[in-house]
Amino acid sequence: MNPIGFTGGRLDRADPLRHDAQGFAAALADPAARLLVLNDYQPEMAEGRLGWTGIDADAVPEDHVLLGFEDGVPHFARLTGQPAAGRSFEMIAALHALETGEAATYAAARSVIDWHARHGFCARCGAATVPFRAGWGRRCLACGTEHFPRVDPVVIMIAEHDGRALLGRQPAFPPGRYSALAGFLEPGESIEEAVARELFEEAGVRVKNVRYIASQPWPFPSSLMVACVATALDDRLTIDRTELEDAIWVSRDDVRAALAGDGAGDGARDATRFGVPPSYAIAHTLLKEWAAA
Amino acid sequence: MNPIGFTGGRLDRADPLRHDAQGFAAALADPAARLLVLNDYQPEMAEGRLGWTGIDADAVPEDHVLLGFEDGVPHFARLTGQPAAGRSFEMIAALHALETGEAATYAAARSVIDWHARHGFCARCGAATVPFRAGWGRRCLACGTEHFPRVDPVVIMIAEHDGRALLGRQPAFPPGRYSALAGFLEPGESIEEAVARELFEEAGVRVKNVRYIASQPWPFPSSLMVACVATALDDRLTIDRTELEDAIWVSRDDVRAALAGDGAGDGARDATRFGVPPSYAIAHTLLKEWAAA
Repeated sequence: MNPIGFTGGRLDRADPLRHDAQGFAAALADPAARLLVLNDYQPEMAEGRLGWTGIDADAVPEDHVLLGFEDGVPHFARLTGQPAAGRSFEMIAALHALETGEAATYAAARSVIDWHARHGFCARCGAATVPFRAGWGRRCLACGTEHFPRVDPVVIMIAEHDGRALLGRQPAFPPGRYSALAGFLEPGESIEEAVARELFEEAGVRVKNVRYIASQPWPFPSSLMVACVATALDDRLTIDRTELEDAIWVSRDDVRAALAGDGAGDGARDATRFGVPPSYAIAHTLLKEWAAA
Repeated sequence: MNPIGFTGGRLDRADPLRHDAQGFAAALADPAARLLVLNDYQPEMAEGRLGWTGIDADAVPEDHVLLGFEDGVPHFARLTGQPAAGRSFEMIAALHALETGEAATYAAARSVIDWHARHGFCARCGAATVPFRAGWGRRCLACGTEHFPRVDPVVIMIAEHDGRALLGRQPAFPPGRYSALAGFLEPGESIEEAVARELFEEAGVRVKNVRYIASQPWPFPSSLMVACVATALDDRLTIDRTELEDAIWVSRDDVRAALAGDGAGDGARDATRFGVPPSYAIAHTLLKEWAAA
């Protein structure tokens, strides 16, 4: 399989240090320790790679998250207190430049920092919370409830029928782009059930035989993308226009041509000429896998 | 595959009604509408099935979650305001009595009700939140942030080596029980990476070739269990005693014998005599699949 975006991180997350405040402080004070610099959530770059810097002697442990160790060297990111504004063109360009292993490190840092910025208070009692566990949790100062970084499972899938795959277009997509349909998995359903529900809700398509293909972390802000293929019972579409601007059935040749293009599309809403998501999105991997089958 | 616990729900979640306050109120006022009664989170039972009752004429919409429709009949559960205390023997007995489809309805209701009870305040600003979207969200009265029910992905997996599977025992398990190892997936990792990390953290086992098997919702309080099998590079164990009381390699014959037993074990910590998790747990499905391979 194609390398999957945001996977392949090389850091050992060193779980025991999350339960060892002294060890955590010692790692932060290690002269070899490295700090990932994020400016408004965009990774600082150095020669096409993630930019790391040293850590100040007066660094406050509670302001840092331990990303993990590589070759014995501790790697940290700093909590900023400000939620992410979204994705910018600069960040997307930076992501295109990163190797997947480095993008994985960035993804973990971005998701955890943004979770802290959005969870300064206890959902249970409303009081202020503070970081603990080496930046991998927050504890309520009033009721003591412990909170841990949230990961939202999202299903992203192709329905297939008679050699064609169902792709959809959201209004916010760049011109000409089509992608796999997707939606948040809800409490009380399996991955397979979420896939079937979303395909029916968004496109009116009933499916059977849902197959898992691959997964990826998606740090905008903190999803787990679960990519699947399902067999559609027929090819009739009832498109939910509040979710999708358009949905089309495309052949393997269509997808191969789109994957061979520049990925941006050209604004045409033609099944044989469309743009695909960027290589770091699992929809890209999913389309590649399907087209190769 | 064996029916998977908590899957196979028959209710159509009727997403459009979540965005239609009038339609939601009309469904609640439908004389045919049904209410799932949960007493301290235990399902009320009637003749071995979920117990449903009618809805009072003065029912307050904000106190209810729309579980979905079956044959045009709306089904609701009532928000209680009190977080779940945990699993009782009575509840476990009730779960054993339910068909998987009914257990799925119970699972969705339990997870959503408990999420409301634990999210009365805005994690972003600390102010009070109120339900919206037919009980499938909460909105902050001060800053307007919208919050949605949390689902926590958990990986649960067998490492296999030379025809044997790795099982572990947590201190809280009933006497004699062994199960697949498990742990929460973290921001910045794929399912496959979480499986590899957890097996190394808990048992010191390095793996390759992680294969997805199945998934299930687990409503204690709101996990998505993702079951996998991975190939261990060798069978040396380094057990993390803060997580596991014991870990053992068992053969397919051992697992078949355990599955044929009463599931309770007998307290023996012997690889050839152990209890397995109950049929509604995906670890049971996973062991059955592995033993049948």
